Amino acid sequence: MSGMLTELRERRPLVHCMTNIVVANFQANGLLALGASPVMADAPEEVEEMASAASCTVLNIGTLRLGTLEAMEMAGRAANGAGKPVVLDPVGAGATRFRREAVSRLLGAMEIMLIRCNAGELAAIAGVDWQASGVDAGQGEMDVEAVAAQVARKHGCLVAVTGQTDVLADGERTVRISGGHPVMSRITGAGCLLSAVCGAFLAAGNDPFRAVATALAFYKAAGGRAAEKSSLPGSFLPAFIDQMALLEDKDLTVPEPEKEVRA
Amino acid sequence: MSGMLTELRERRPLVHCMTNIVVANFQANGLLALGASPVMADAPEEVEEMASAASCTVLNIGTLRLGTLEAMEMAGRAANGAGKPVVLDPVGAGATRFRREAVSRLLGAMEIMLIRCNAGELAAIAGVDWQASGVDAGQGEMDVEAVAAQVARKHGCLVAVTGQTDVLADGERTVRISGGHPVMSRITGAGCLLSAVCGAFLAAGNDPFRAVATALAFYKAAGGRAAEKSSLPGSFLPAFIDQMALLEDKDLTVPEPEKEVRA
Amino acid sequence: MSGMLTELRERRPLVHCMTNIVVANFQANGLLALGASPVMADAPEEVEEMASAASCTVLNIGTLRLGTLEAMEMAGRAANGAGKPVVLDPVGAGATRFRREAVSRLLGAMEIMLIRCNAGELAAIAGVDWQASGVDAGQGEMDVEAVAAQVARKHGCLVAVTGQTDVLADGERTVRISGGHPVMSRITGAGCLLSAVCGAFLAAGNDPFRAVATALAFYKAAGGRAAEKSSLPGSFLPAFIDQMALLEDKDLTVPEPEKEVRA
Repeated sequence: MSGMLTELRERRPLVHCMTNIVVANFQANGLLALGASPVMADAPEEVEEMASAASCTVLNIGTLRLGTLEAMEMAGRAANGAGKPVVLDPVGAGATRFRREAVSRLLGAMEIMLIRCNAGELAAIAGVDWQASGVDAGQGEMDVEAVAAQVARKHGCLVAVTGQTDVLADGERTVRISGGHPVMSRITGAGCLLSAVCGAFLAAGNDPFRAVATALAFYKAAGGRAAEKSSLPGSFLPAFIDQMALLEDKDLTVPEPEKEVRA
Repeated sequence: MSGMLTELRERRPLVHCMTNIVVANFQANGLLALGASPVMADAPEEVEEMASAASCTVLNIGTLRLGTLEAMEMAGRAANGAGKPVVLDPVGAGATRFRREAVSRLLGAMEIMLIRCNAGELAAIAGVDWQASGVDAGQGEMDVEAVAAQVARKHGCLVAVTGQTDVLADGERTVRISGGHPVMSRITGAGCLLSAVCGAFLAAGNDPFRAVATALAFYKAAGGRAAEKSSLPGSFLPAFIDQMALLEDKDLTVPEPEKEVRA
Repeated sequence: MSGMLTELRERRPLVHCMTNIVVANFQANGLLALGASPVMADAPEEVEEMASAASCTVLNIGTLRLGTLEAMEMAGRAANGAGKPVVLDPVGAGATRFRREAVSRLLGAMEIMLIRCNAGELAAIAGVDWQASGVDAGQGEMDVEAVAAQVARKHGCLVAVTGQTDVLADGERTVRISGGHPVMSRITGAGCLLSAVCGAFLAAGNDPFRAVATALAFYKAAGGRAAEKSSLPGSFLPAFIDQMALLEDKDLTVPEPEKEVRA
C-alpha cells in the first residue's frame, strides 16, 4: 500500500483549477471530498500569483475563451517557474479548430506534467483519424497504448487516457487500470474532475507516474463503490462524492507498470 | 407511442448549449441522463464550427454578456446554414432592457425553431404588461395560449410556455401538457434544462411540433415520478436526473393538438 | 421567535447575485429552497437596472474578472441609490494582490451593509498576519471578535465571520452563533451561499443586525439537521437544501448580542 492518499490528506494540496463553467462546482466538491483544497481563478491579473502559490495547476479548455487561453499560458509558465506540476485536460480537443490550436499553444508554452484525456482527445492531439462528437470520446481505430506512449515521448510528459480501461504512459512504461462503472460516462465532468484529482495526487507524491496511477485507481474505486449504491446518474453523483471522502489507501490497488518495447 | 425517445437515444444528438453559469452543470447532466450528448461552447472563435457540427444549438441568456450575444448570432446563423434547429431560452427577458434587446436581436438575426419560455418571458416578448420579478414567471393577466400563438405566427416558430401547465403553439395548433410537480419551480434551471431537452428531441424527430410536445411530456413525466421519491428540492434533484435516464417511450402520453381559430 | 423566516417567504425577495462559476448553481438552489428568488446577472449593460430592481445585491469575488469588478461597482452604487442592501463576500481576499485590491476598491466604491467572510479573509481585510491557503480559512492567531468589530467600525458595516462558531459584529455589539456540523467545511460554496442567505434575510427584516443573526442561526440549523441525515459531503448536499426548505421560525434560536467594550 502506498500511503499516498493519507499523505495527500495530510498535505491538503491547494489545487488551482482554470476550468469550465460546467464542471467547476463538481471539481471543487470532488477535490474537497478527496481532502485537497480547490481554488478556481482565471483572471490574468492573478493567475501567476495563484499558480505559484498553489501545489499544482490544472488547465481545462472545456468552455475556453481566448482571454483565458492567454491567462493559462501565464499560469502554466508561473507554475513551471515555481516547480509546480501542470495538468492539461484538452476537453473536446478535436471538436473545433480553436480547441486543437489551444492545445497546441498550451503544449508549446509550458512544461505539462500530465495530459489527462479521453481516446478522442488523444487522437486529436496525435493527429490520428477519429470520429469524435463534441466532448465525447467518440469512436475509431487506434492502438491507444502506442499512441499514448508516442504523445508522451513527443511532449516529455505523462499521458493518461481514461475510459472503460485507463491507460497511463510515460513513453517507456504503461499501466492499465480497470474498474469503475459505465455510469461514470453518463455524468458530466467525470474526466474533468479526474484531471484535478490527478493534480492533487501529483502534488502529494514524489513519483509522478505512481502518483497518477494511484489517482486513477482511486477514481475507479470510488466510482465502482458508488455504483453499488446507485447506477443511475442522478443518485450516483452524491454517492460518488461520498466515496471520495471515504476511501483509504488500503482500498486502492495500483497495478505495476509494464515496460514497453519502442516501435 | 411515438418511439421518439428510443430514436433519440439511438441517434445520441450533440446538443450545443450556449448557456449560463448557473445551470450549465445541470443541463449537461440532464442531457446525458436523457441520452443526448451535451457540449457547451461560446467562444466566438469556435461557435460557428460547433453549431454546424452539432445536432442543434440552444441559446440561453441567463447570464449573458455582450460578447456572448455576438457569438450567439454567429452560432445561430451557422446552425441555420447547416439546417440545424435553434432553440431560444429568453431567461428573464423582461427583467432588464439589455435582455429585452438581446432577445430582439437574436430573433432578428436568425431563424429560431422554438422559443421555450415562462409566462413572464412570453409577456416581455409580446409586449404584454406583466409583473415579472427577475427570472421568475411573475404574475399578470394574459391569455397565454393566444399570446403564444401570436408570437409563434410573428416569428414563424414554435412557442412553448412552460409552468404548471405547458402550452405549445405553432400559430395554428395548440397543445396543453399537464403533470409534473410544484417542486419543479423550486429548483434552479428547470426551464433551462427543458429548453435543452426540447433541442435534443427536435434533433431526434422529424416533426418539430410533435418533437417538442414529446419533450414536454417527457419532462413532466420525469418530474412527476421524481417527486414521488421526494418533493423536497434537494433530494428531488438527483431523483429527477435518475428519472430522465429511466423513462421510456411507453411512459409518455403526448396529447393531440387542437386547431386554433385565429382572432 | 422572530417570524423573520415566514416574513422572508411571504416577501420572496429578489436576490441579485454577482457570483462565481463554482457556486452559482448551489447559491440559486439554496435561495430557492429558502424561499427567496435568485437572479444572477453581471453584464455591465444590465447590473444597474437589476440591482435597483432587486431586494439586495450580493457581490462575490470567487472567480472575479476585471470587467466584472467594474460592473460590481456600478451595481453597488445603483443598489445604494435605490436603498437596497449590498453584501460583500471577499472570497479568498488574501490569496492574491488582485483580490486584496478588488476588496479595497469595492469597499471604497459603495456602502456595504454586510461583509460575510471567513477568518482568513477577515485577516486579509484587516491587514492581520495570517496563513491563508487559497480560499480556505487557513490558520493564524487573531482575536476574531475584536478584529471583526474593528473592521465593522472602520467600514460602517456589519461583519459576519463564519466558521465553526460564527461571529457577527457591528462595532458595538457582538453575537456568537454555534451549531452546524464540520461537513459544512467540506462542501464548496458553503460560505458563498451563506452570504446570499444573509442578503435574503436583510431584504426581509427591518433590523439588519437581527436579520443577519437570524440568517446565521438558520444556516447552522439547516446544516446541523442535514448532517443528521448524512455527514458525508455528497449526500449531505441534497439534505442541506432540503432542510433549507423545511426549517421554520420555531426551529431557530437566535442568541442575544453582547455589548462590547471598545479598546
